[in-house]
Amino acid sequence: MTDTYRRIVLASRPEGWATVDNFRLEELPMPPLAEDEIRVRNHFLSLDPYMRGRMSDTKLSYAEPQKLDETMGGRTVGEVVESRHRDFAVGDTVRGMLGWAEYGVSGAGGLTKVDARRIPLSAYLGVLGMTGMTAWYGFNKIMDPKVGETVVVSAACGAVGGVVGQLARIAGIRVVGVAGGQEKCRYVTEELGFDACIDYKTAGDAKALVGLIRSAAPQGVDAHFENVGGDVLNAVMTLLNPFARVAMCGLIADYNSTKGQMPTSAITQPVIFITQRIKMQGFVITDHLDLWTEGMTALAGHVASGRIKYRETIADGLTAAPEAFIGMLKGQNFGKQLVRLASMRELP
Amino acid sequence: MTDTYRRIVLASRPEGWATVDNFRLEELPMPPLAEDEIRVRNHFLSLDPYMRGRMSDTKLSYAEPQKLDETMGGRTVGEVVESRHRDFAVGDTVRGMLGWAEYGVSGAGGLTKVDARRIPLSAYLGVLGMTGMTAWYGFNKIMDPKVGETVVVSAACGAVGGVVGQLARIAGIRVVGVAGGQEKCRYVTEELGFDACIDYKTAGDAKALVGLIRSAAPQGVDAHFENVGGDVLNAVMTLLNPFARVAMCGLIADYNSTKGQMPTSAITQPVIFITQRIKMQGFVITDHLDLWTEGMTALAGHVASGRIKYRETIADGLTAAPEAFIGMLKGQNFGKQLVRLASMRELP
Repeated sequence: MTDTYRRIVLASRPEGWATVDNFRLEELPMPPLAEDEIRVRNHFLSLDPYMRGRMSDTKLSYAEPQKLDETMGGRTVGEVVESRHRDFAVGDTVRGMLGWAEYGVSGAGGLTKVDARRIPLSAYLGVLGMTGMTAWYGFNKIMDPKVGETVVVSAACGAVGGVVGQLARIAGIRVVGVAGGQEKCRYVTEELGFDACIDYKTAGDAKALVGLIRSAAPQGVDAHFENVGGDVLNAVMTLLNPFARVAMCGLIADYNSTKGQMPTSAITQPVIFITQRIKMQGFVITDHLDLWTEGMTALAGHVASGRIKYRETIADGLTAAPEAFIGMLKGQNFGKQLVRLASMRELP
Repeated sequence: MTDTYRRIVLASRPEGWATVDNFRLEELPMPPLAEDEIRVRNHFLSLDPYMRGRMSDTKLSYAEPQKLDETMGGRTVGEVVESRHRDFAVGDTVRGMLGWAEYGVSGAGGLTKVDARRIPLSAYLGVLGMTGMTAWYGFNKIMDPKVGETVVVSAACGAVGGVVGQLARIAGIRVVGVAGGQEKCRYVTEELGFDACIDYKTAGDAKALVGLIRSAAPQGVDAHFENVGGDVLNAVMTLLNPFARVAMCGLIADYNSTKGQMPTSAITQPVIFITQRIKMQGFVITDHLDLWTEGMTALAGHVASGRIKYRETIADGLTAAPEAFIGMLKGQNFGKQLVRLASMRELP
């Protein structure tokens, strides 16, 4: 173990798109370990769109803003390298919130042991972590589709959207993805098994986008999972069937709008709420951790049996995190975006 | 009984605001009565904002467009004047959908007998009709507020909004109305017992409107009943507490927008769905008539005991209906807008 470790702090708050200048790499001395504390070497860091929201100083009711000059928050998986707590031993693999840093120190309450023998450690940040839970909750508790219905998933190639669509497919429900680019669409249909995928980049305008989605959902849309907002959401809304459900998970289109600018995600035809009796519900998975066991049991079964596939985009090394994060916000990742914090060569 | 009767038909579809020229008065011979049919002299016609939606040729999933040159649809109460059905006798008071007409003919399935001995006949078009049910359903099944919470009701002086607010007051829940004008606000607080009422006309801009509502809802808003859309909805949305519920009942702001025009009701900050985990649900009361007995039992008790008050604006005579309808869309009515179709002098 080295005497120092590196971390990335928030150097400044972005206006509009985040840039690498908003981040700063620091090298700090390894802090001493107090009684009952555990030191973890982080192997993987999860990068997630919600982090962009925390970089602004707007208070989000479900999360405090990220503080300036402090370690960027984030979920991690890693290995215990030093322990002064009787329940954790060196070599244990754990999940925690140790942030954009090579090492972290935590009490026992901040760590959960995970079994990395049959399932890769990184999966606990994705399909068997908050990402998978988010998909499972939105699909089962808000969309709640029945056989014979059609569902649409935006950002279908993303880590959450990909799991939503596969849950639909497993349940025998027609699922149409929306993604940006032919390569992503091919992955969504051929690898993840969606019934169809619309490349929104091929639609010249909003009306054409509606036409493309309609051609893949000729019976209309009974439930929708929204990750993006804006044109895609408005297009899908015009196709909703009576009593359709919309799970609002993310509005990436919004995260980079500057102050005072009209968000690009505005819902332009709210009268559809009434004409079609729509239920739209926003959710944040950390409100529903009481369902963790139920969700994880279902997901782990599907992952173990190969019914749910997932893909990861892994940036190499802490210093690559800012660029990987910005790329993810621009849709450049494929599936779950992670950062590998410990080189595989060094790992046991 | 005369040999002819008068009705109003849809003469043309409005672009933007409906005008009196969209309607045409006709006099027709009284049709013969077939077996099992009942002839009703209509005493009151209910005017409702949804009618504006039906005047356009856009298909609403919950209602076909109003056909040109046919009697304008609408709910009525009246008295049986001729019957060839054994279950209905001359003199029975009934509610039906006999439209903008002085007389109507119906089968038994289209009529419900109502008891006009202790409760005025007109109430069965309002607080003890679809209007009251709409308020009761939205309040209990979507807003579902708990003691200690704050609710907001737009168009608080309207027939539906007034009942929603009184249901809140009866349940011991803080209720803030939004209405247009000091006189309406005085009625909402002094007669209906709302805790506060915001006159949106006194707000210079959207930000000022937020400030006014906030001052009356300092703990934030836990549930909202939306009748209008646009600035009021967007202002209330910025004040929603986590897990708030929004019942979408009407979007009067939208009904008169012309084709291709951006609706004035756009939801400008949908990210609030996620940051506050909002549930927004549109509804049409005719989907929920299985709850009629439950709702009516509650409402009739409140009305009989005087705990729910209601007010009617009554236009006199069929020919006054178009102007009264347009006035209602512009917010000129006070409580439930009705048209008296039979002069009181002629009634038994």
